Amino acid sequence: MKTKLNIAIVGTGNLAWHLANAIDSSEHNLLQVLSRDQKRAEEFTQNLSAKGISRIDDIDANVEIIILALTDTALKGKYIAQFPKNAIMCHTSGSISMRVLKSHKKHGIFYPLQTFSKQKEVDFSNIPICLEASDNEVLQKLHVLANSLSKSIYEINSKQRKALHVAAVFACNFTNLMYDISSDICNDANLNFDILRPLIKETAAKVQNHFPEDVQTGPAKRNDGRVIEYHKKFLYDYPDYQEIYDLLTYEIQQKHEEL
Amino acid sequence: MKTKLNIAIVGTGNLAWHLANAIDSSEHNLLQVLSRDQKRAEEFTQNLSAKGISRIDDIDANVEIIILALTDTALKGKYIAQFPKNAIMCHTSGSISMRVLKSHKKHGIFYPLQTFSKQKEVDFSNIPICLEASDNEVLQKLHVLANSLSKSIYEINSKQRKALHVAAVFACNFTNLMYDISSDICNDANLNFDILRPLIKETAAKVQNHFPEDVQTGPAKRNDGRVIEYHKKFLYDYPDYQEIYDLLTYEIQQKHEEL
Repeated sequence: MKTKLNIAIVGTGNLAWHLANAIDSSEHNLLQVLSRDQKRAEEFTQNLSAKGISRIDDIDANVEIIILALTDTALKGKYIAQFPKNAIMCHTSGSISMRVLKSHKKHGIFYPLQTFSKQKEVDFSNIPICLEASDNEVLQKLHVLANSLSKSIYEINSKQRKALHVAAVFACNFTNLMYDISSDICNDANLNFDILRPLIKETAAKVQNHFPEDVQTGPAKRNDGRVIEYHKKFLYDYPDYQEIYDLLTYEIQQKHEEL
Repeated sequence: MKTKLNIAIVGTGNLAWHLANAIDSSEHNLLQVLSRDQKRAEEFTQNLSAKGISRIDDIDANVEIIILALTDTALKGKYIAQFPKNAIMCHTSGSISMRVLKSHKKHGIFYPLQTFSKQKEVDFSNIPICLEASDNEVLQKLHVLANSLSKSIYEINSKQRKALHVAAVFACNFTNLMYDISSDICNDANLNFDILRPLIKETAAKVQNHFPEDVQTGPAKRNDGRVIEYHKKFLYDYPDYQEIYDLLTYEIQQKHEEL
């Protein structure tokens, strides 16, 4: 199998941005980036070797893999069916089934599990890329591409991807809500959020080498009723946070009671 | 003011361990570590210049600051009143009032905000130390000690400390529960928790330079009803997690609706 692949990316969002830059820096060729808006496509590709295009018809005949880096709602079968049939069609979504790509005989999932913001650079080599494919030949090609971008490649099926997406909501989106609530409480008490930043960093650092269950701390884990009551009293002015405090405290107690 | 202070630590838990090592490596003198159990005190001080003791009466007359690194429940006024009255009495708790130290004219709070485990080394210089004191002279002495251990010193009052402790439960203990739930879901789907570790790290890294509110992502933030329904269906077998998913999703929607 030749190792230099010709790639096109569809989309100009945060994931498309990081993926385009990573592929452009790899041994593979990012030939084109497609956006509905020609100007946006050209701006996006300004510092890339890829060409910005806005029509599906303009997709280069040499493109072997088309990566749809689009929001879930944009991944419609009818839209996808318009793309050149000889290319391998991929999407990058955590929750959309592989079946949406069935208009193409060769298709697969190329799902990088990370939270992307355009303003924050990420080291793509540390991002886990989850692969699934219509057949073994496609899977091997996706491996070749993924291997040149990242050290962590996982083959996971659609059912596992669904579980992983839910898990990621807890590990990332809900975690960020916890940070947000803590920031809110600090703000009201005229405390600089800087005080909490090292704690947040260390909490994440701990589970890099341990399992979360083994490093749980706090009043709920210790079953310290006095402190819990004290906190609930404090949260009297924050009914939403009090409800969350109750539910999560109960959950920690349940989890660590059973042990 | 002379800068070399004589310190004693009471307690042999995780915080006592990290604090004792940090003070021992500073320009100050850690004279003694007190535990109810003489053997434990001696084991604890084996590689420290401090002496392990088990009786309050044995506290050196030169000790200027006694730091009670004890659990909240151990911080009783009657117990504290037995310590030499000429020393500055401090405790390290996030939730216990400074009044518990009132048997001593000179007293204060020395509260390092971090999650400590004996098995994991921490760089004390990055740990915020929150100070409060009975008077300005004590405050200055605590500053001298804190400054030699950490770059981040904050003067906060008891009311702020209470808020900070609740905030820390969200930022650390509840955050770790989110990790634990995600690990549980992965485990059931036969997925290696390693896939999520970079996401967890990046989520914490993002709020080191941004406010959590500004970097919130996910289906709740995007108000993506289809994905939310999909996830809730997935969580049907996990009623506890489904309830948490509902409540936290609602909270994110509320927060970002108002903006």
